[in-house]
Amino acid sequence: MIFWKFLLLFPLLTLAFSHQPFDSHHLPRPLIIEYPEHAEPRFKELEEEELKLRCTSWRFSVEANNVNPWKTIPEECGEYVKDYVTGRAYGVDLERVSNDAGLYAKSVGLSGDGKDVWIFDVDDTLLSNLPYYADHGYGLEVFDQLQFDKWVEKGMSPAIKSSLKLYEEVLGLGFKVFLLTGRSEGKRGVTIENLINAGFRDWHKLILRDANDQGKLATIFKSEKRGEMEKEGYRILGNSGDQWSDLLGSSMSIRSFKLPNPMYYIP
Amino acid sequence: MIFWKFLLLFPLLTLAFSHQPFDSHHLPRPLIIEYPEHAEPRFKELEEEELKLRCTSWRFSVEANNVNPWKTIPEECGEYVKDYVTGRAYGVDLERVSNDAGLYAKSVGLSGDGKDVWIFDVDDTLLSNLPYYADHGYGLEVFDQLQFDKWVEKGMSPAIKSSLKLYEEVLGLGFKVFLLTGRSEGKRGVTIENLINAGFRDWHKLILRDANDQGKLATIFKSEKRGEMEKEGYRILGNSGDQWSDLLGSSMSIRSFKLPNPMYYIP
Repeated sequence: MIFWKFLLLFPLLTLAFSHQPFDSHHLPRPLIIEYPEHAEPRFKELEEEELKLRCTSWRFSVEANNVNPWKTIPEECGEYVKDYVTGRAYGVDLERVSNDAGLYAKSVGLSGDGKDVWIFDVDDTLLSNLPYYADHGYGLEVFDQLQFDKWVEKGMSPAIKSSLKLYEEVLGLGFKVFLLTGRSEGKRGVTIENLINAGFRDWHKLILRDANDQGKLATIFKSEKRGEMEKEGYRILGNSGDQWSDLLGSSMSIRSFKLPNPMYYIP
Repeated sequence: MIFWKFLLLFPLLTLAFSHQPFDSHHLPRPLIIEYPEHAEPRFKELEEEELKLRCTSWRFSVEANNVNPWKTIPEECGEYVKDYVTGRAYGVDLERVSNDAGLYAKSVGLSGDGKDVWIFDVDDTLLSNLPYYADHGYGLEVFDQLQFDKWVEKGMSPAIKSSLKLYEEVLGLGFKVFLLTGRSEGKRGVTIENLINAGFRDWHKLILRDANDQGKLATIFKSEKRGEMEKEGYRILGNSGDQWSDLLGSSMSIRSFKLPNPMYYIP
């Protein structure tokens, strides 16, 4: 033990008794200015800070529908988007939207005639495709319909928990729930199965794209379907979707709730 | 000098030669668990991180129009909003919106008949009221029309530089520029003066609220005015505003550009 203590003491003694330890003028002076040791990481830190700023800015543009259309996320924001959707922030944002929607749902008086409607989109609104996008660069890769169809056919998309909570709330309040999805009729079976396994139930109608709807922009397809609901006397009071094409167009809902989705864009 | 070196050496010697310096069993043991010294700041850091997450989430809800209406910013987000609008992020976001809008403006072919329109809102779209809000808690205080009118009467709002750049771009492309503001007719003089001093010029029409428009929701007032433009044969191709009430409603623009504004909400 004593030996180790001396070993510890030695460099300290050297420092304490050296003759000019702090007089830099006696050291060889560099011919070029040298940055202090921490300058490099500090610069990297600033670069990272700047990138975060720019990617947050991009995410805002997406959520406010300013940048549209877009095919893939900016390459430099790959890590940022991954961190966002796999970290706490995405969950906090999803919860916030459901809470805001729930507060509104509770605040509107329903007529009681069964004509008050809440519309939910399916993909990345009720069901999460995050496992699929984890395997496809979180939006860095161009959307591949074939690959995505294979994923959908598995029927393994988990529920977005905060959306399930809202879903049950609006059912409990007496809303008629319509599910309006860009998935095609061929996926009806697996979609129902997936929804039920994920905990969703008692929807009034599940509307998918039939043969006539193929090739239509989502905004048009969904506007038409909302128009049909209105013709049948329904009042669309709330609409939840992760894409602006779920929410905008004609026969718009009284209030719309945009769930975050920084991974892909559907026109 | 030697004296100071001995002074430095003394506690080191004490440490090195004490008999049981690292054997904690001989120290009096605390009866309650003590957190290591750095736990408190770390906890504070986490708390700050959590607050930032929640306030960013709130800002997203605002920009995506999920939370509406709202009177003041959440009290716990006061510092966050102040940091955002006085720091780099707000400027980066404003620039981003103008760039996105500019790209779109350049991409649409104009007809050349002088009927292609770009609409700009005035307050916090072309002119910045940040100096006013700096004196009023950056949105923490409930909006005070009287105080705000006094600020407007000064005609001292500076230009939002990135908006001025977009403004000149769309003018250059041949758009007819309409300014559509919730300010009342009584403010026409000071508004024109402020706009010109800030560098804005050559707008086709400045539309303010007249006596008939008082008390109307901004969404209604602005929708009506856009409707009138359409009746006159104008095509509204672009619309820039910091409030959703600048952009939504009827006779909506082909594309809308939402400037960030986390400080206040106008229905």
